[in-house]
Amino acid sequence: MSSELTQEPNSSSVSGSITSSKTIEANVIIKEFPGFKLRCGYELAKYDLAYLTLGVLSEAKDNAILICHSLSGNAHVAARDSKSGKLGWWDVHVGPGKTIDTDLFFVIAINVLGGCNGSSGPSSIDPETGKAYGMTFPPVSVQDIVKSQVVLIDSLEIETLFAVVGGSLGGMQAMAWATEYQDRISHCIPIASCMAHSAMQIAFNEIGREAIISDPKWKKGNYYGEEVPEHGLSVARMVGHVTYLSEYAMRQKFGRRVQEQSKSNNYFSTLFSVESYLQHQGESFVRRFDPNSYLYITKALDMFDLLEGKSASDVFDSVTAQFLVISFDSDWLYPPDQSRDLVRALKRCNRMVSYVNLDTQYGHDSFLIENTQLKQIIQNYLFQNYRKIDNS
Amino acid sequence: MSSELTQEPNSSSVSGSITSSKTIEANVIIKEFPGFKLRCGYELAKYDLAYLTLGVLSEAKDNAILICHSLSGNAHVAARDSKSGKLGWWDVHVGPGKTIDTDLFFVIAINVLGGCNGSSGPSSIDPETGKAYGMTFPPVSVQDIVKSQVVLIDSLEIETLFAVVGGSLGGMQAMAWATEYQDRISHCIPIASCMAHSAMQIAFNEIGREAIISDPKWKKGNYYGEEVPEHGLSVARMVGHVTYLSEYAMRQKFGRRVQEQSKSNNYFSTLFSVESYLQHQGESFVRRFDPNSYLYITKALDMFDLLEGKSASDVFDSVTAQFLVISFDSDWLYPPDQSRDLVRALKRCNRMVSYVNLDTQYGHDSFLIENTQLKQIIQNYLFQNYRKIDNS
Repeated sequence: MSSELTQEPNSSSVSGSITSSKTIEANVIIKEFPGFKLRCGYELAKYDLAYLTLGVLSEAKDNAILICHSLSGNAHVAARDSKSGKLGWWDVHVGPGKTIDTDLFFVIAINVLGGCNGSSGPSSIDPETGKAYGMTFPPVSVQDIVKSQVVLIDSLEIETLFAVVGGSLGGMQAMAWATEYQDRISHCIPIASCMAHSAMQIAFNEIGREAIISDPKWKKGNYYGEEVPEHGLSVARMVGHVTYLSEYAMRQKFGRRVQEQSKSNNYFSTLFSVESYLQHQGESFVRRFDPNSYLYITKALDMFDLLEGKSASDVFDSVTAQFLVISFDSDWLYPPDQSRDLVRALKRCNRMVSYVNLDTQYGHDSFLIENTQLKQIIQNYLFQNYRKIDNS
Repeated sequence: MSSELTQEPNSSSVSGSITSSKTIEANVIIKEFPGFKLRCGYELAKYDLAYLTLGVLSEAKDNAILICHSLSGNAHVAARDSKSGKLGWWDVHVGPGKTIDTDLFFVIAINVLGGCNGSSGPSSIDPETGKAYGMTFPPVSVQDIVKSQVVLIDSLEIETLFAVVGGSLGGMQAMAWATEYQDRISHCIPIASCMAHSAMQIAFNEIGREAIISDPKWKKGNYYGEEVPEHGLSVARMVGHVTYLSEYAMRQKFGRRVQEQSKSNNYFSTLFSVESYLQHQGESFVRRFDPNSYLYITKALDMFDLLEGKSASDVFDSVTAQFLVISFDSDWLYPPDQSRDLVRALKRCNRMVSYVNLDTQYGHDSFLIENTQLKQIIQNYLFQNYRKIDNS
């Protein structure tokens, strides 16, 4: 262990195997940063980022892990929110003694630029007009999201992130960190992600966007202060949910079960459990997500292309981060082959890369669910590599 | 050959291997039939069916093949429509010298009850009110669709259909013929179908229904004579299209190609080919399909359950039809396992069944596309079994 770290009050369970019973609280902070020129050419004058930190930064500042969220996530990655009382979206894997052990690591999670949970996005007020940006908010790329994070990491005076971890869109952010900020990241852990969306991934996102845009309440994005295009967003979310689950998971979870209250002979009043589940998911999502942000973030996902026509060698030769790439056998939205493409490209360029394809049966959502194998793999990887720093 | 058939003018290419250059015309007929009691309990007073026949019925009336269409199909299965000049939806497989050879067989195709292409459905006029039924049209099951077909087949004075063939929903109709009208069908050929929808299949249909119902123009189904909820139907169709294609087919067809006219630096104006294709599919569908029919037919699909809690033995022991079951390796919407479930159940009951899983790469749509293997398998099966009648 680094001597700095052992002096920290939370360092008792550094092995990561002792489960702590401490209840920790999450307090998302919103901070304003000076703007920068986005990829699209737009000069962002300033921007807010909502972020959360858990654990304690070591004096050597060598234990920081940035966790990047996926499409519908936010900065509240783990712990109990002091206002809502709710746990974070990856609390199952992040906390004292957990997969990413906040007794050992200093965790940072940031709501993406373009989002709607504290960071600047289309629902934010444009300082020039005093009104919500709507669709005048500049298009944001994954690389812009990462650039906005670099400014925040700078403000925390962290030179090098020990690791950047994320699933799906979060994995793309991790890859962009590794390729664009080579000296600022030691380990890159993309989970169930890809170097570029396939036609099918684009197609499902496009259906969601079309559902939002064709909702008459969308009004070209100028619905703030009026009725929200919630039907469109709800349908978009339903599409998302089906693609995140595996056929197996749906069969196990719902099968052809029918809702108790709708067991009638009338065909139209019969509601399968899966229908009621999806409707509920759609409806509850509209209470926490901005339809315009859904457009911006899905477009950033679809436009992301790590290689952008360059050779793997051009992109990866200067990369110094070690990679741990993880995919799930049942994930048909981000199929393992996409992760293997990344692994092969890294190997061809003689980069350090470990790859695990996990035999879970819960589709793309596998990375969000409690999973002993996933826990052990990430925990061991982080701990062993962190110990190397300590021993060096 | 049966002596009756050889006397028919079209019987020159009975081997099915000689491709005829004859251009045949399709003329869909609409006929009214006396009603019957539907499964839901509703007494349908009368109903129309739109149907098409191709080829000539043999004097022995032993060469009739009923082709049942899937969700968005219609009676115009093949040949050139004399008005629109368009070819039918399965023209690639049905016609003189084709897979289902109209020089040898008398083909019948019927628009489903509940549909919107000539047969009675929610867009038809309710004789009691003089207005379109809308959602007061009774819920229709696959078994009701088949019952309505039996009445039509009776009117053609055909005792036994040589075969009932269909993909997807069409396969369900074929199975219902085999199990409910055992003495009226000799061969049952369900393609890319299943005995009952899985949670995932229900989920995708539910998204489509939700998109339609949440379109403000839907107005509880009473939009006739007013604006059609075309945005909802368009999104529903887009969902359908993505699920009909394989990941491979989409990669081959679209990849990450961008539309020429939208190659700009602006993220939102960039349109991937796959997006433009889906938008076009959605928009063109609304010109030919009624949103309420989409609700009725998808619900019939979801509610279909061949066994309905009974044992395979209870359902299949009395079946006399021989089965040819076909699935496609890349079909993830109706995965081969669903066809295998049917095959296993039939085999357990000592029924005659052949099964082929074809290694095509075009997903569920494989059954609609030109495919030499599919052609040979169906053509040989039909010809060899038809020759048996002739030799007996």
